[in-house]
Amino acid sequence: MYPIITISREFGSGGHSIGEAVAKELNIPLYDSVIVDKTAEEIGFTRETVSQDGEYISPSQAWYSSRIAYRANFPSPQDRIFDTQREVILSLAAKGPCVIVGRCADYILDNTPYTTLNVFIHADKEYRKAHVLERYGESDVPIEKRLKKKDKGRRAYYRYYTDREWGDSANYHINLDSGYLGEMVCVDIITSVARRMDSQK
Amino acid sequence: MYPIITISREFGSGGHSIGEAVAKELNIPLYDSVIVDKTAEEIGFTRETVSQDGEYISPSQAWYSSRIAYRANFPSPQDRIFDTQREVILSLAAKGPCVIVGRCADYILDNTPYTTLNVFIHADKEYRKAHVLERYGESDVPIEKRLKKKDKGRRAYYRYYTDREWGDSANYHINLDSGYLGEMVCVDIITSVARRMDSQK
Repeated sequence: MYPIITISREFGSGGHSIGEAVAKELNIPLYDSVIVDKTAEEIGFTRETVSQDGEYISPSQAWYSSRIAYRANFPSPQDRIFDTQREVILSLAAKGPCVIVGRCADYILDNTPYTTLNVFIHADKEYRKAHVLERYGESDVPIEKRLKKKDKGRRAYYRYYTDREWGDSANYHINLDSGYLGEMVCVDIITSVARRMDSQK
Repeated sequence: MYPIITISREFGSGGHSIGEAVAKELNIPLYDSVIVDKTAEEIGFTRETVSQDGEYISPSQAWYSSRIAYRANFPSPQDRIFDTQREVILSLAAKGPCVIVGRCADYILDNTPYTTLNVFIHADKEYRKAHVLERYGESDVPIEKRLKKKDKGRRAYYRYYTDREWGDSANYHINLDSGYLGEMVCVDIITSVARRMDSQK
């Protein structure tokens, strides 16, 4: 059986497209927006709130909530989103092999019976800037700032909810520089490892 | 042409054997002890001194030498080893594609005309402990402590001479968990990427 492939990615690294191509290649589902939809439905928040607060956290929010007692007794809306999102991810994982992009899935599926392949996709800033502009176009905010803000929010979110360091190789089985290697090579590496894991079990 | 493959590795992760297998598979030289030999010869230190001081640094040494002015004016024997080792690595790189294990080769070859593939091999502690005991056997020092000391020394050395974080995915093109994936899979990933880079140029 294929593993559950979790893909964490720096903003603009092409991690999402890589996840899509891997899912297509292996003919397994990709879960991204469906996680947001299901979480929003369960908890009664809008898609936008879940989409934003389910992957990003502001430094002030992280500081506030870092007092564990505070968090346990007064879960913030963001804590409730995390918990619901966690349940959604676990229920999707129970359905079988899939690709899950972002949302701390690597951490959430740790110490569960599921076999995972945890991947982190990164690239240098110039590559990511060009990629973001190509995909989403210009906005009022300068590209440098957009990149920084997204990375910072994801990093803080990951650290806050997992107590681990985002992008630290210790937390992933494979980290790939998509800018240097190219997206196609990343897809090939991930699918070939997944196929090997499949043939071994 | 194949890239120059640099392999950085946690102690006991099997990074050295992976490097050997990659070199054999691609039929290119592996440079490890030859770097020590050549550096020792150039600088007139023993092999043991170069082997130890060319990859490990003690926290007190790092603290002392961290004052840049101090280092520039009074290079320590260790600084001289680094500089000589750097020259040796550059002269070996000039000979063509090869595999270089450790010794900040990824950093040293950065911003040179050489095309590199920078790999970091890591694994969880249990795997590495078992691997070290199997390879080197027991010693007077408990295995946990041996692992910690080696990792700490390499990390400090890398940070001191490169100003980068050892194992941080931003510094490598590929990071692989050899304990989870298996050494053979790591070898296959590295060789297949090298072959692709070869066919593209």
